[in-house]
Amino acid sequence: MDDSSTVSTESDHIAVEDPLEIRLGNNPFVVTMRTPGHDDELAAGFLVSEGIVKERSDIKEISRCPTSPTPENTVRIDLRDGRKTEGIKSNRVGAIAASCGVCGKTSIESVQGQFPPIQSKIAIDRNLLLKMPDRLRESQDVFDKTGGLHSAGIFDLEGNLICLREDVGRHNALDKVIGYTFLNNLLPLDKHVLVVSGRVAFEIMQKALAAQIAVVAAISAPSSLAVSFALTSGQTLVGFLRQPRFNIYSHPQRIE
Amino acid sequence: MDDSSTVSTESDHIAVEDPLEIRLGNNPFVVTMRTPGHDDELAAGFLVSEGIVKERSDIKEISRCPTSPTPENTVRIDLRDGRKTEGIKSNRVGAIAASCGVCGKTSIESVQGQFPPIQSKIAIDRNLLLKMPDRLRESQDVFDKTGGLHSAGIFDLEGNLICLREDVGRHNALDKVIGYTFLNNLLPLDKHVLVVSGRVAFEIMQKALAAQIAVVAAISAPSSLAVSFALTSGQTLVGFLRQPRFNIYSHPQRIE
Repeated sequence: MDDSSTVSTESDHIAVEDPLEIRLGNNPFVVTMRTPGHDDELAAGFLVSEGIVKERSDIKEISRCPTSPTPENTVRIDLRDGRKTEGIKSNRVGAIAASCGVCGKTSIESVQGQFPPIQSKIAIDRNLLLKMPDRLRESQDVFDKTGGLHSAGIFDLEGNLICLREDVGRHNALDKVIGYTFLNNLLPLDKHVLVVSGRVAFEIMQKALAAQIAVVAAISAPSSLAVSFALTSGQTLVGFLRQPRFNIYSHPQRIE
Repeated sequence: MDDSSTVSTESDHIAVEDPLEIRLGNNPFVVTMRTPGHDDELAAGFLVSEGIVKERSDIKEISRCPTSPTPENTVRIDLRDGRKTEGIKSNRVGAIAASCGVCGKTSIESVQGQFPPIQSKIAIDRNLLLKMPDRLRESQDVFDKTGGLHSAGIFDLEGNLICLREDVGRHNALDKVIGYTFLNNLLPLDKHVLVVSGRVAFEIMQKALAAQIAVVAAISAPSSLAVSFALTSGQTLVGFLRQPRFNIYSHPQRIE
């Protein structure tokens, strides 16, 4: 409807959301609601975030699942020979709790214990950091049309955009970026900056830690748990990254 | 940092995020990362969304869990006498897939099969609808300070705000609203409008259907799956609800 109260019928660009089932070998592992595209990266990045794979060679093959009723929404990952897939469970907070009853706090501590804290001594220029959101937006190809996608981008210390991914789920956008860097042997990302389009909660910091990302910068606000997680994990967390200023919530020594 | 490149140390309001474990009787059920507050409503609303409780009398008691190491982050729900809690599993897409291997599509169809489609013949005035986002914002008490919370509000057909809840997770904000209305015997919400602050994906429409909400209106964009779900569930879905216009994606007959 426009401002003169008329009704018009128009076609609209809508962000696509569809379930992706990730299988480990023959076993169902997890389903995530994602925007189709870069599904191999999403599946690989998810396994990195969960600590199930550490090196490129841990994955033998990524394939579609031809026996699935919806092969376009199913990705199968086979781990390297000799690695059993039976019994591997997702660490996602909900799944853990539903299956084994540890409380959330415990699972958060176990995530931090699973990955070493960030020791990276990089320094990033504040003006370079301030330019990254514009560079991210210039490279986005869907957001302007649909208004419905989150984006995540990895930059190097010269401000070059290494990889940008978009998704209806912000955790998926990050998993895709992590999966891309993992599959191209670019991990750890301890000399890189992650910029995300929206807010930052615990889950984003958890995934960033798995990839050893030294600096996480968000256009919008962090949550309290994101800040406390960053403080104890050695991660630099930047929020409200919008010209001409930003906030630093943890480990400011990496911002010059 | 301000625009003259100076650095200042300031305190900042941050949206609180903490894990909440919901237990069914003695059994762990699910953990969700939420903003503390209205935890009873969140737990009850979650059970409504999952189709586990239908009527107020299905819940015997909601209590803290004194034996938990973190009682402030644990809510226990006891169902009415004679109702077993063992073996009840969360239907959340990820949890379903991890435990039983049905694919996402199947679980979406099962959600729609679980709840009847909306038949409500209400009509809502377009100008009243356009005023709801401002009414929502006027009633929000945390968003302006932290910039980190999603909100969900239920309005009646006269435009009165019945309940507003905020949370770091948009699904939690909606579960709290549904829990409030459930605990106060206001379900079904087939003569009400839900307004949410951000985007709308599948999960929001699923929860709205469980509460029989007739009209869902979002300030921002819907996903493709939200639209297709709304079309087959009889839900009216409005997006980009911002003066002086909005888009209707499904069942427009309820908007005058």
